[in-house]
Amino acid sequence: MIRLLTALFTGTFLLGLTSCEQKTLEYKAPNPYRELILDSLAHPWSIAFINEKEAFISEKDRDLLRVNLETKQRYPIQGFPKDLYTPFVINVSEYLPRRYPTSLDGKKIYANAGILDVILHPEFEENNRIFISYVSRIDKTFALKIISARVVNDSLSDIQTLLNPGPYVPGIWHFGGGLCIQNNHLFITVGERLFFEDFKEGLPIAQDITDARGAIYRLNLDGSIPDDSPDLGLGSIPGMYAFGIRAAQGITVRPGTEDIWFSEHGTIQGDEINILQAGANYGWPNITSGTWRSPGYKPDSLENPTYTDPQHYWLQTVAPTGLAFYTGTEFPTWKGNLMVPGLSRGSLWRMVLSGNSIVSAEELFIGEHIRSRKVMQSPDGHLYQLTDEDNGKLFRIINKK
Amino acid sequence: MIRLLTALFTGTFLLGLTSCEQKTLEYKAPNPYRELILDSLAHPWSIAFINEKEAFISEKDRDLLRVNLETKQRYPIQGFPKDLYTPFVINVSEYLPRRYPTSLDGKKIYANAGILDVILHPEFEENNRIFISYVSRIDKTFALKIISARVVNDSLSDIQTLLNPGPYVPGIWHFGGGLCIQNNHLFITVGERLFFEDFKEGLPIAQDITDARGAIYRLNLDGSIPDDSPDLGLGSIPGMYAFGIRAAQGITVRPGTEDIWFSEHGTIQGDEINILQAGANYGWPNITSGTWRSPGYKPDSLENPTYTDPQHYWLQTVAPTGLAFYTGTEFPTWKGNLMVPGLSRGSLWRMVLSGNSIVSAEELFIGEHIRSRKVMQSPDGHLYQLTDEDNGKLFRIINKK
Repeated sequence: MIRLLTALFTGTFLLGLTSCEQKTLEYKAPNPYRELILDSLAHPWSIAFINEKEAFISEKDRDLLRVNLETKQRYPIQGFPKDLYTPFVINVSEYLPRRYPTSLDGKKIYANAGILDVILHPEFEENNRIFISYVSRIDKTFALKIISARVVNDSLSDIQTLLNPGPYVPGIWHFGGGLCIQNNHLFITVGERLFFEDFKEGLPIAQDITDARGAIYRLNLDGSIPDDSPDLGLGSIPGMYAFGIRAAQGITVRPGTEDIWFSEHGTIQGDEINILQAGANYGWPNITSGTWRSPGYKPDSLENPTYTDPQHYWLQTVAPTGLAFYTGTEFPTWKGNLMVPGLSRGSLWRMVLSGNSIVSAEELFIGEHIRSRKVMQSPDGHLYQLTDEDNGKLFRIINKK
Repeated sequence: MIRLLTALFTGTFLLGLTSCEQKTLEYKAPNPYRELILDSLAHPWSIAFINEKEAFISEKDRDLLRVNLETKQRYPIQGFPKDLYTPFVINVSEYLPRRYPTSLDGKKIYANAGILDVILHPEFEENNRIFISYVSRIDKTFALKIISARVVNDSLSDIQTLLNPGPYVPGIWHFGGGLCIQNNHLFITVGERLFFEDFKEGLPIAQDITDARGAIYRLNLDGSIPDDSPDLGLGSIPGMYAFGIRAAQGITVRPGTEDIWFSEHGTIQGDEINILQAGANYGWPNITSGTWRSPGYKPDSLENPTYTDPQHYWLQTVAPTGLAFYTGTEFPTWKGNLMVPGLSRGSLWRMVLSGNSIVSAEELFIGEHIRSRKVMQSPDGHLYQLTDEDNGKLFRIINKK
């Protein structure tokens, strides 16, 4: 047996070995450091590893890329449907139906639209098939679209539209678009698309099971509806699996339990981490840990609603995005932790779980804040991070000696 | 040399030994757990360890206790000056000069007054002398007082008043009272005493070097003023060492650098962690990372002020209190971290430093929130925590297997 003896230096300890000559090991506290792998990405949104050296990276404002992480070579994937339009620069006042932040008055900005998530088919090695979410445009109206396609010679082929949750309406925020696969089902987050809550009167969009928005969907990998879909009620949109969700982007499977965890943007605070449950109503906008943007807003509610609580919410605005569970070896004390990037504050959060409870939350990289869109683990367990910047970057997070 | 081989289990890793038979060590991630040591404390404020088994504990609302942590026996220290009055239950509207939170209208509450900090003299073993901060009362007005006294047969003797930063005014909040000793100097935090910023018009109290409040003092251990005191300007209060500080409670010496770190309460957010510097102006209330309670407040300012920035501020209200650096062995990866308790949110924060920068901040014990007043390390390096509750508790924080 190895026995802990004593600690001599800050951040280190010694191991004493009783069964052979004594040796020492300096065990250092985690010292995460961002190693730059790629830059000049156009607001990258997601990354899907083909293997340890190769990945697809979706740039929200330009291309879906196939990237060699060693040679740094980039190959734009051709053949996207014509309803995708990037770079998506808009004049805010032209596209927003009513109020919008006055700070944006008359300005042209990159929309929260373009190419969003990309993930591999479980049999990608055989069929070269991927799933992509992007924002589809018809004139000055928009809706989320999820397609699957085979990648052949860096071009999409055999494109199938799996979900196109309308209606097409103006407004360039909160499309959702998060994708993950569990047990040969495709899960999709669909945002409610509003900036101010009272853009919709009466029953809120996310509470309305006959409106396709503000929900999470579960489909078979060919886009068909699973036979065991939850019964959400009369007139509910086929494939809708849970609802009452404002703007979820990050969705991932927890290794071990195989539960699906997702992040959700609130308005003013109200950012949450949730566990997905079939048929659950997560309460937006009728209940929130944050504050509505519309003062005096009084939403209608369903009759006798049952709302499902989040596993965690912040008391500050974080804007949590593409989250991932860590199972690598580089940070031994982080094993099983949930890593959550943030656009607004806290480039990277590390959440420690006990069962399904989040028992501690560490904000990493304080003082070097960046808008962080996605964290993802490579097949070998290395942790990567994408930044939502004009000069977007891919970092590998290493444990610096 | 010992070489890291691979990880088999969540939260563990294996060590492969090359110079003798291979052995394995399961290294578990920190798993902090609160072990109850004492309860039924009357809003305890601080703890000073005499040795590993014995400590003084100040109860804000009752007694200064000498406690045997093994037998749990408690011995109230007698002989306090008559201007101390506990339990300090007040009728809010009777004591507050103007506005106060309407939720407190007509209510009797425990005041933020009573016995505050207690620390040992560096030669306590020889002279049995301790330092105490408490709130002194004259009719319906109050001021902080710092005394030193010898403890003989569980009674105070040879009491010396070291500082009594007036004026005596109504208002039962923000006395400060934090104490620490560095290099045979006594450091004392003195709060600015206001609840709303505009209770004082013109130059704010904390910016006024001729007003004793809203500052940190440095004295010799006999209460005299050190010869090398910083020159704060004409009419400055003797012993004033830094100013522009709203309501600091926690103050401690960082092992290694010997810098002094202190926590500061903001109003709405604006909670900070600072490093003490001679003569520095920390800016309250003229600059703050939070929001004033008084809308439209326009404070006068000094001419050409130089404000010193905090090392850290939160974007949520934390109400940080009696902080301590951790140098123990029970949590090897926490060595050198700054532990910060919170009254409002986050029972315990763990701050990781790189040089003087706080590079990450972990909120521990999410979901089991308690009002946390003080963390302190015992002589052997065990971590203890006091809770600010009617049934106040002393916990030892252990690394649970």
